[in-house]
Amino acid sequence: MIIDCHGHYTTAPKDLLAFRDEQIAALKDPSTVPSKRALKITDDQIRESLEGAQLKFQRERGSDVTIFSPRAAGMGHHIGNETTSRLWTEHCNDLIYRVGQLYPKNFAAVCQLPQSPGVPIANSISELERCVNELGFIGCNLNPDPSGGNWTAPPLTDKHWYPFYEKLVDLDVPAMIHVSATCNPNFHTTGSHYINGDTTAFMQFILSDLFKDFPTLRFIIPHGGGAVPYHWGRYRGLAQDLKRPPLNEMMRANVFFDTCVYHQPGIDLLFKVVPVENILFGSEMVGAVRGIDPTTGHYYDDTKRYIDKLGLSAEDKQKVFEGNARRVYPRMNKEF
Amino acid sequence: MIIDCHGHYTTAPKDLLAFRDEQIAALKDPSTVPSKRALKITDDQIRESLEGAQLKFQRERGSDVTIFSPRAAGMGHHIGNETTSRLWTEHCNDLIYRVGQLYPKNFAAVCQLPQSPGVPIANSISELERCVNELGFIGCNLNPDPSGGNWTAPPLTDKHWYPFYEKLVDLDVPAMIHVSATCNPNFHTTGSHYINGDTTAFMQFILSDLFKDFPTLRFIIPHGGGAVPYHWGRYRGLAQDLKRPPLNEMMRANVFFDTCVYHQPGIDLLFKVVPVENILFGSEMVGAVRGIDPTTGHYYDDTKRYIDKLGLSAEDKQKVFEGNARRVYPRMNKEF
Repeated sequence: MIIDCHGHYTTAPKDLLAFRDEQIAALKDPSTVPSKRALKITDDQIRESLEGAQLKFQRERGSDVTIFSPRAAGMGHHIGNETTSRLWTEHCNDLIYRVGQLYPKNFAAVCQLPQSPGVPIANSISELERCVNELGFIGCNLNPDPSGGNWTAPPLTDKHWYPFYEKLVDLDVPAMIHVSATCNPNFHTTGSHYINGDTTAFMQFILSDLFKDFPTLRFIIPHGGGAVPYHWGRYRGLAQDLKRPPLNEMMRANVFFDTCVYHQPGIDLLFKVVPVENILFGSEMVGAVRGIDPTTGHYYDDTKRYIDKLGLSAEDKQKVFEGNARRVYPRMNKEF
Repeated sequence: MIIDCHGHYTTAPKDLLAFRDEQIAALKDPSTVPSKRALKITDDQIRESLEGAQLKFQRERGSDVTIFSPRAAGMGHHIGNETTSRLWTEHCNDLIYRVGQLYPKNFAAVCQLPQSPGVPIANSISELERCVNELGFIGCNLNPDPSGGNWTAPPLTDKHWYPFYEKLVDLDVPAMIHVSATCNPNFHTTGSHYINGDTTAFMQFILSDLFKDFPTLRFIIPHGGGAVPYHWGRYRGLAQDLKRPPLNEMMRANVFFDTCVYHQPGIDLLFKVVPVENILFGSEMVGAVRGIDPTTGHYYDDTKRYIDKLGLSAEDKQKVFEGNARRVYPRMNKEF
């Protein structure tokens, strides 16, 4: 079985976005009471949104299951207030639940969280519990920067986040560290903010004893670990200079990278430096890069092709395509 | 000749730091009038600070000239106000000038700028002119985030920066895009803030027609181009999706990466994807990573070793070690 650990519902039916537009428009009028209207989205509309996109690519590229969450750029935790974020998040997660109900063999559900700048992360616990306990979700996306590019929250290793980590451990679900759209003009959402978020999180983990406090806490750092594998020597050297544990030891049971790296030399590097036990197959399709690479004739984000070319042993392939994901997302095992 | 394009005076004599400490302490008392006292630094102290460090490594590793600037983490543009930054910057640059006078064959001088959050970059022009016209400097370090990790300045492609770019073009000197220390606890100065700065700048360049406005403007993005070569497919794909020019075309005469990547697989990747015309040898010694890699027995930042192992042609070696630097820093040619 081939599990793609990183897919977002980037093709959601248009009434979801219409709701969001109404919500954002209402923010301009402070007298408006935020509300959550029913979405006008039929099962057929959901099927249609997936059949020509994620499901088509699963079939064409040969993956079986996508660990599927709401569109990351759409989370927009910096927009409005806590209520704005809560109502929007519930809608997004409810829709992911419906996707999983319609295609129980193709999608494993992961939720977004109702984060909001300055709001304690503990306030996101109830939505996590609803999604995991009531709706069968297997993980969540955690935004290290709910401000959308102003980086005003404490580092992920700060005690601020601990109540939420306790719940992750308790539920035995991992979090993918994933920022959302940026409102800071210095950053491009998918071109620099995402990658910077990944790099930032990894360096925070190097500096902290977080995983001594939470030995079973598991994070997926997407986009191939940001800049980390390319600068593996820098990070090994920094850890060494700072008298921190070696990277492999720090990552072992706690930090995982996906394979959302859109060219062969990048994937080659990733597998050369990062232990295969810490790499999960991912493509982020349909996502950041949608075109076809003229140098290969294939989609940039068809990352399975790059991995197939590595010449991995059958055992290592099994880890990257399935085994590691089952270990990181143990609630998958019940469903798939 | 082997030119190392990236070295900072990280070993400066202690009275430089004493001045900075006094300056920062005085900020607490608003009645203090900022002043620039003479530094108590002798030529012998300068010699001593370099002989056991940068000069020793030049000899041991076989490089000839280091393009040398004040310590990047020390620039601290977010500290104090414009006057604070100006006085500190003048001291730092004056010291680099003295280094060049003492070792005219070993160091080519590059200046820091008296940037300050919210202050027009045009106010940095006079210090650039002083350094280039009066002191023989060959380039500068430009901080895209003078706020130190809050990213409050406009993108590098914004017209805000244009008056300074006009002067760079006029003087025919390049700028290395280099952030300084961060005061945002999310970021580690050398571990994430530096690399994020590099990645951020490159994505800004993809999105802009800056080099149509300034066809001879030249930027060095240090640390091997941040995350860019590892995600070369992502950036190629984003440029394509966004109908922007191909990366090689955008970079050609305007954007250059150094080789401050501290392991062989990273350097291998860099040379596999980035045109050799756009790569300048750099080590950042003595800098971010000071230890010896136990897997090789050599210093992490002895980047010449990795390049020597690439099997480049003599012509390509000449470009990376000398020719590209002379093209990017034409004022070098008069001195070395």
